[in-house]
Amino acid sequence: MSLLDTLCINTIRMLSADAVQAARSGHPGMPMGAASMAYVLWTRFLKHNPANPRWTDRDRFVLSAGHGSMLLYSLLHLTGYDLPIGELRSFRQWGAKTAGHPEYGLVPGVEVTTGPLGQGLAHAVGMAMAERFLAARFNRPGHEVVGHHTYVLVGDGDLMEGLSHEAASLAGHLRLGKLICLFDDNRITIEGPTALATSDDPRRRFEAYGWQVLEVDGNDLGAVSVAIEGAKAQEETPTLIAARTHIGHGSPNKQDKASSHGAPLGDEELRLTKEALGWPPEPTFHVPEEVSRHMREAMERGEAWEREWQARLTAYTRSFPAESALFTRWQAGELPAGWEVSLLATNDGGEASATRSVSGRAIQVLADQLGNLVGGSADLGPSNNTAIKDAGAFVPGRVEGPNVHFGVREHAMAAAVNGMALHGGLRPYGGTFLVFSDYMRPSLRLAAMMGTPSIFVFTHDSIGVGEDGPTHQPIEHIAALRAIPGLTVIRPADARETLEAWQVAIARGKPTALVLTRQKLPALSRVRMPAEGAVAQGAYVLTETSASGDDRAADGHPRLVLIGTGSEVQVCLQAQKRLEGKGIATRVVSMPSWELFEEQPASYQRSVLPPGSVRLAVEAASPFGWERYTGRSDAIVGMERFGASAPADVLFEKFGFTAENVTARAMDLLTP
Amino acid sequence: MSLLDTLCINTIRMLSADAVQAARSGHPGMPMGAASMAYVLWTRFLKHNPANPRWTDRDRFVLSAGHGSMLLYSLLHLTGYDLPIGELRSFRQWGAKTAGHPEYGLVPGVEVTTGPLGQGLAHAVGMAMAERFLAARFNRPGHEVVGHHTYVLVGDGDLMEGLSHEAASLAGHLRLGKLICLFDDNRITIEGPTALATSDDPRRRFEAYGWQVLEVDGNDLGAVSVAIEGAKAQEETPTLIAARTHIGHGSPNKQDKASSHGAPLGDEELRLTKEALGWPPEPTFHVPEEVSRHMREAMERGEAWEREWQARLTAYTRSFPAESALFTRWQAGELPAGWEVSLLATNDGGEASATRSVSGRAIQVLADQLGNLVGGSADLGPSNNTAIKDAGAFVPGRVEGPNVHFGVREHAMAAAVNGMALHGGLRPYGGTFLVFSDYMRPSLRLAAMMGTPSIFVFTHDSIGVGEDGPTHQPIEHIAALRAIPGLTVIRPADARETLEAWQVAIARGKPTALVLTRQKLPALSRVRMPAEGAVAQGAYVLTETSASGDDRAADGHPRLVLIGTGSEVQVCLQAQKRLEGKGIATRVVSMPSWELFEEQPASYQRSVLPPGSVRLAVEAASPFGWERYTGRSDAIVGMERFGASAPADVLFEKFGFTAENVTARAMDLLTP
Repeated sequence: MSLLDTLCINTIRMLSADAVQAARSGHPGMPMGAASMAYVLWTRFLKHNPANPRWTDRDRFVLSAGHGSMLLYSLLHLTGYDLPIGELRSFRQWGAKTAGHPEYGLVPGVEVTTGPLGQGLAHAVGMAMAERFLAARFNRPGHEVVGHHTYVLVGDGDLMEGLSHEAASLAGHLRLGKLICLFDDNRITIEGPTALATSDDPRRRFEAYGWQVLEVDGNDLGAVSVAIEGAKAQEETPTLIAARTHIGHGSPNKQDKASSHGAPLGDEELRLTKEALGWPPEPTFHVPEEVSRHMREAMERGEAWEREWQARLTAYTRSFPAESALFTRWQAGELPAGWEVSLLATNDGGEASATRSVSGRAIQVLADQLGNLVGGSADLGPSNNTAIKDAGAFVPGRVEGPNVHFGVREHAMAAAVNGMALHGGLRPYGGTFLVFSDYMRPSLRLAAMMGTPSIFVFTHDSIGVGEDGPTHQPIEHIAALRAIPGLTVIRPADARETLEAWQVAIARGKPTALVLTRQKLPALSRVRMPAEGAVAQGAYVLTETSASGDDRAADGHPRLVLIGTGSEVQVCLQAQKRLEGKGIATRVVSMPSWELFEEQPASYQRSVLPPGSVRLAVEAASPFGWERYTGRSDAIVGMERFGASAPADVLFEKFGFTAENVTARAMDLLTP
Repeated sequence: MSLLDTLCINTIRMLSADAVQAARSGHPGMPMGAASMAYVLWTRFLKHNPANPRWTDRDRFVLSAGHGSMLLYSLLHLTGYDLPIGELRSFRQWGAKTAGHPEYGLVPGVEVTTGPLGQGLAHAVGMAMAERFLAARFNRPGHEVVGHHTYVLVGDGDLMEGLSHEAASLAGHLRLGKLICLFDDNRITIEGPTALATSDDPRRRFEAYGWQVLEVDGNDLGAVSVAIEGAKAQEETPTLIAARTHIGHGSPNKQDKASSHGAPLGDEELRLTKEALGWPPEPTFHVPEEVSRHMREAMERGEAWEREWQARLTAYTRSFPAESALFTRWQAGELPAGWEVSLLATNDGGEASATRSVSGRAIQVLADQLGNLVGGSADLGPSNNTAIKDAGAFVPGRVEGPNVHFGVREHAMAAAVNGMALHGGLRPYGGTFLVFSDYMRPSLRLAAMMGTPSIFVFTHDSIGVGEDGPTHQPIEHIAALRAIPGLTVIRPADARETLEAWQVAIARGKPTALVLTRQKLPALSRVRMPAEGAVAQGAYVLTETSASGDDRAADGHPRLVLIGTGSEVQVCLQAQKRLEGKGIATRVVSMPSWELFEEQPASYQRSVLPPGSVRLAVEAASPFGWERYTGRSDAIVGMERFGASAPADVLFEKFGFTAENVTARAMDLLTP
């Protein structure tokens, strides 16, 4: 190791330790331990351009062990990203970009928000998949416009998470040869040595997944280099480089101890550490001039790399102008003209359809129109209607088409969908039963936090699941999804609403959960509704009977409002008829999306749900949260318990999702 | 294979196929394929007593591939459990015990509700852990009162789930030698051959976890026998028996095809299958007399087994009367006299404490008092305060004490806690950060569905997490937990409430989530509150200022009610003072648990939250659902967005959890 190498590595270590000390909070041990291997990766291999963090053909680097955020911030700062030293000084403070865990969108060069363990690895798998999809679509003999690696740095915590199994197994199956995982094998967790809790053999485990596994001393720069070269040379499988490191490296009393994991070293131990590393105790945040110069060579390399790639793109454009234009449009996230018209024209107008089936039709049209729609299901394709027909799949080592067989891996699917979305160039989606959204919540949360254009297709959305019973019938899931800030949940009531739901999901480009029925639903009559865009408004007046006298609210419309979503809108319509028979005027509101409704102007909201109206919500799900719109908890027809195993129509009847029960409940509400 | 064996196995197959056909719904393929190995296990090995499904020393059998429920129902029926043929005939119908997926509590002999994949395996790990805990505690040389195996049947879907990694890794680490997993390796998933989605090598994978792996032809009864014997002989590690089987075994056109997985064979194919197997086409649900006789020998064997065990218990009782009495009390779930007094006496009365710290003290006292409290954390012990002090842990192959290092395996922890609770004899708990409750929701849901006495300790319950930032700050989690039917969520506001929360969790014996702070909270003054039991009522009046004139509600009490939970109760109290300074009378209600409050009589609920009162809820979490108690959505001080990385006090200030903001919001509400 040259003196300069040592200086650079110690700079990373001490910037990290200083920042944690200044913040009196954070994780110094991991950056100190992994600094050497990260230094090798970033100075000798990582193809990136600090001046243009969004360059499409950059290598991706994901810090799955996100608690080691200072490692990444140090590298970003030193290699010339727009992250001044002042940001490092204000690590973990209000308004700083240097959040406790790396946040996508806050810091240039952070590819994905990490911290919740396992997530970075699984998102990286998605990124590596996206690279393969795009390479297969655009590269031509002699023309490689897509060709980059995805590097992910994981800790033992990442590898203990179940998600790591799903992600690594999927990556091994697909033979993602450009995915390279560096395992910071420091053998220390929060509770102590990893041996307290795990006896796994990572080599055998990852070989079982079809990975190449290399083992190195993480502080031997030459060995790390050789390993990364070996990983790049093995293009047929992903590679795990298990690098033996020492948490808190350099700290005389805390190296190799859990005490260096999640708390500042302390002033005295930090002083001793600097002494041990031959580092000046003052000033803090010290960056030697030669380190700065050396690390910033990344900028020149990066510029050259991108220039070289631009030249390749130019040559490609000459040979394949149409392809090149398409590549650029995909990367920019542009949608082709007329896609919405084609989508909405898919409505067959009138036939009863399960909304999952309509969603399946929407996927076909969108796959044709957009070209870059990719996705699949966690082994429920035939039920979720997620397959793109007459098209191939991503099979081991080869992209034959846009379909993905995610396997029974809901969590990795969600993360991979996010990872593909983050990579850019694709419009990814993933499907499963709504009840299994529980398996993927940590990744759904990250989608919401990052605002990725991820689309989740959740079918079998209620007791309409029927005979499979309570384990497969979602009850609390719609509420639990609505509770996630930033996630748009849409539960369409018929074919038309389903197509519009897809339209909204694609057009907004934000994380969206589509909640779809197993069972067929009749097409709603749209006497009053706008020609289109109803779903985009979140809720709208579907129909109302004419009111007079006591039935009238202040605005002259019916005082009674029945609010339904999805399959229960039709129950509201049936109840409306019964109520009309009893001389009671009713408005029926279809409310496919709370989030979209909340975005509307207050005046629109009032026009749909007039102040002073008496409202009854009907949704075959937990009533949790519906008081927001009904004002009272006895004005919700919902599921207060888990479901049961029986034919769906029996269940709707037994649990009160009938015109009769809704009518009775409405009349109770009107009785003072 | 003898003719009788063949007859028995075909009976299981055809009962399953007939039931699915009758229901026009279900999964015939798995029972048909796994019938042989299940038959071997149930007739040659499984130590159980159909007449007493709750016999404590029975072997546990868990059907992790719960969609194959008819396999289990057939076995239960044939071996003499209280499950008459009529129940099989009404498979998947309203009111039948034979739900689509096996439901704990509904059918004698179903040890755990399964269906969501991976769960059965992980719950079985908990059961096997419980057996080891109890064996270590009670067995004496020459006296084995606890000594049984846990068998779990898994499919490829179970093994693809991330949860299977966590569970198998934990089981391998702990060296659960009495855990035997039969892998129904039929190579077919819903989307087609497993090769579409996975290339895992199960042998290498499970060997990496430290398991013994045996491979057999699942239809070779002798080979399956030898494998199970080999599994029992290997007492140092768990065993995976990978049994090659054929889904839809016997069906001429659907064997080895995905089409036999999740749909009836169809009348014609069922007829052809019966023909191929030499089975009479009619009557359906045919059980040959000799099959019935042979399978019911399980009853005699079971009675003998239990009798033999009773004799052992009697001998044990003679030698170790106190231990035996304790064993019996633990099995019965009886609590020792005075445990509550000791628990509540732990209150140090007055000092500010983080509720997680108080919970840690509660755990010490309860460990001493109960003796059978076991648990730990998913590698956050020092933060969750979950370790039982001065006590050993479950280390590889040996129980040295009640602590469990679950590792970074939140999901398996939750399932194992449930599994231990289901096993009986123990009071298990598991802890992690509240934000990571997302990783374990599928198991939390099963706890709620089964009503197991599982206790989940969720600390770091809000933006009070501080610098770790939005990835670690729960926002939607409290709402998402409250939305689960049957789960009791308690967020105590100070030391006293925390102790009472533990009291409630232990006394009720139902699944409970304790939501605890990272930061210190002052002890609340309890001028008005009852001496004890406040938490048990879910919400109670903590204090109120005197009201007059406009400030008075109809009952003479203050019209304005501030409702707080956890750390925000103190904010309400501070606001109350400010409001008093402005001449506005206020009641402050502490509301640690919605679920417990909802169980109270309406009169009590009205006395706490009087009709017509103006209410403002304050909780540093998503406002989702609070309209239930405030009636309006502008009357909640909550978190409408994800948090941020900064010191906790800064975050509470920036996000409006201050006396000033609460006061202002309250005054807005009072302004007409």
